Amino acid sequence: MIDLFSEALILHKRLRGKINIIPKVEVRNINDLSLVYSPGVAEPCKEIARDPELAYQYTIKGNTVAIVSDGTAVLGLGDIGPLAAMPVMEGKAILFKRFANINAFPICLDTTDVDEIVQTIRNIAPAFGGINLEDISAPRSFIIEQRLQDLGIPVFHDDQHGTAIVVLAGLYNAAKVVGKDVKDLKVVINGAGAAGIAIAKMLRCVDHMNQEACIPVKQITVCDSKGIIHRDRKNLNFAKKELLGFTNFDNQVGSLKDALVNADVFIGVSKGDLLKAKDIETMATDPIIFGLANPTPEIMPEEAYKGGAAIVATGRSDLPNQVNNVLGFPGIFRGAMEARAPKITTAMKLAAVHAIAECIKFPTVSEIIPSTLNDRVAYKVAEAVKAQAIKDFGEHKYAEGI
Amino acid sequence: MIDLFSEALILHKRLRGKINIIPKVEVRNINDLSLVYSPGVAEPCKEIARDPELAYQYTIKGNTVAIVSDGTAVLGLGDIGPLAAMPVMEGKAILFKRFANINAFPICLDTTDVDEIVQTIRNIAPAFGGINLEDISAPRSFIIEQRLQDLGIPVFHDDQHGTAIVVLAGLYNAAKVVGKDVKDLKVVINGAGAAGIAIAKMLRCVDHMNQEACIPVKQITVCDSKGIIHRDRKNLNFAKKELLGFTNFDNQVGSLKDALVNADVFIGVSKGDLLKAKDIETMATDPIIFGLANPTPEIMPEEAYKGGAAIVATGRSDLPNQVNNVLGFPGIFRGAMEARAPKITTAMKLAAVHAIAECIKFPTVSEIIPSTLNDRVAYKVAEAVKAQAIKDFGEHKYAEGI
Repeated sequence: MIDLFSEALILHKRLRGKINIIPKVEVRNINDLSLVYSPGVAEPCKEIARDPELAYQYTIKGNTVAIVSDGTAVLGLGDIGPLAAMPVMEGKAILFKRFANINAFPICLDTTDVDEIVQTIRNIAPAFGGINLEDISAPRSFIIEQRLQDLGIPVFHDDQHGTAIVVLAGLYNAAKVVGKDVKDLKVVINGAGAAGIAIAKMLRCVDHMNQEACIPVKQITVCDSKGIIHRDRKNLNFAKKELLGFTNFDNQVGSLKDALVNADVFIGVSKGDLLKAKDIETMATDPIIFGLANPTPEIMPEEAYKGGAAIVATGRSDLPNQVNNVLGFPGIFRGAMEARAPKITTAMKLAAVHAIAECIKFPTVSEIIPSTLNDRVAYKVAEAVKAQAIKDFGEHKYAEGI
Repeated sequence: MIDLFSEALILHKRLRGKINIIPKVEVRNINDLSLVYSPGVAEPCKEIARDPELAYQYTIKGNTVAIVSDGTAVLGLGDIGPLAAMPVMEGKAILFKRFANINAFPICLDTTDVDEIVQTIRNIAPAFGGINLEDISAPRSFIIEQRLQDLGIPVFHDDQHGTAIVVLAGLYNAAKVVGKDVKDLKVVINGAGAAGIAIAKMLRCVDHMNQEACIPVKQITVCDSKGIIHRDRKNLNFAKKELLGFTNFDNQVGSLKDALVNADVFIGVSKGDLLKAKDIETMATDPIIFGLANPTPEIMPEEAYKGGAAIVATGRSDLPNQVNNVLGFPGIFRGAMEARAPKITTAMKLAAVHAIAECIKFPTVSEIIPSTLNDRVAYKVAEAVKAQAIKDFGEHKYAEGI
């Protein structure tokens, strides 16, 4: 029997790329050609020239997303460059189609310069209704996303928000199972890259416009490879400095293990095999463990349970409670694009958190997060995000089913 | 009955864009997901990181073309901008698929700056095996194409070479029909935009590497809206100055009508309704008339025949001898990409010219150019272009059927 990795290689070679671009309409004769191309095509062109919003009616724009990467932070592989990132972006395009019927196309950029990436995305934006930033290393990814928020279409860095959204949905249900109030949780996040920082921000509802749906966790401590991030650390990048505005209010110093003492929740977005059962034993009662490093979690479930964990989630598809971004991004883009939202607000992200969490009526230890292949999730998320977008931005005159 | 233009508008609105991006493989279960996405996808990523050429084996690159436009010179509509150009680029994507099974995606650029366009195309190149430049106004289009010839993948400005290739194929057959030698023809080109200049260059085999297939027409005169382009004209742009290196050797001055006297061939890539029967009467015996302005030709066939024309071609699908780029670009990209050619040489273009011409065994007055919907043309062109590419660049180690 061949293993998964050999099989994946053979499949990719056989397919020569995982997506196809196909016409929605056949060209059987000269009349067909005259309608889809010259001279008939001039009519929608003229209409769009008159009113640019009509591009949403006459072109693919309204249902098309660019998956943009520079290949600097791909999966667990790191900086492998734009060409080598292509299979991941094509895979993501499959997921956009599979879960939300969105056309997505990989744009792999042969530059790592922030200004150039921002300018390139601005330049290619006309064909797209949304931009999904992917696998771009932090902190450049934060800057790129921030600088593109005025583009007029949603620009969303999935490695940050996608993970954060699914983690918070799981945390919400996990707290229910152990009978704790999310607001009272003492949370330790290990990893201060894109995902770790985004999780911290959402837990504190930083930049939040709508208090209603908010989960403002009071105590958060973030660690990186050097231990707890505190005010006296030297050489912190701007994103880590920003974190200190809403985490570690007591300015605790020490290691990850120091941080864990009496904590209710551990969220690892770092690397495998960091913790042992004895570390979990130091935590508060019924600790909740999210070990999301892939393929090896920060702590394996059996080891965590040995230390007294109440609930364990990982990033792995072969274990219960898989945190997988695919529960988030397809429905988020679908909802935002159907509402013609110019951006994805924190309130829209929180709407997605609650929609995902509510896909499970009665959460249990082995089911705090819906299954990755549950088709209902994306549509629930899309509805919630669209409704919130309409609250945030009003009904758009051209918004309708795409 | 509704007219073509209303029907085109309704069709575009109903379709909401004319292309779809679809997975080549289904995601039915977690195992499928593990193969096309994480964790299995890491294998082809690692392979490509090791050897970038393997992107042609494991990704869509080898069979994917970007159709790049800034919307400055769209059809007969002029500078309508990148959004309004989208329907044309989507239509072109349909033709790439229909005739050569190539995946093509519209990249409509929100900038008209030459440096930015060049840089943006360089930045997005990893996902593509070829770049089709489209509807970018001259002379910027020449500079952009020229500056991108070192990109390592074919960069082809279809408005220049596509039209030139099909015109020359038709001219080759037309000369056969009237019993003249192409080399002896006195040719007048009206219009010194992208197409006019490219036609002149190919007639003179400028930059040609391989004399064998060449058609070096001796006498060419090019006119623009101010008349014959000659050495004493002021304020000529660089492209028109370059033309004078291989046209109008006698430095003839005067109007288009002066140029036509005793000419064998008129090629109009300008605007409608310029000529009358009496202008054709001043030409040499059996004149060949290509009136390619759309939708109204420089002279309608019946008027040209009244003036003594032997053969007339237009750009219109409802008249005989339609010059349509679709006879060229699908097969040219297919052949170049199958051979993994780093660029499209003049010899490859001439191979396309002869392949198109030879699709008609016995040319007649009413058939010097194959029908636009003749499926054999693209494959004949692809074979010829691929064979020439292998002559020009050698067998590529990864070149094989895509």
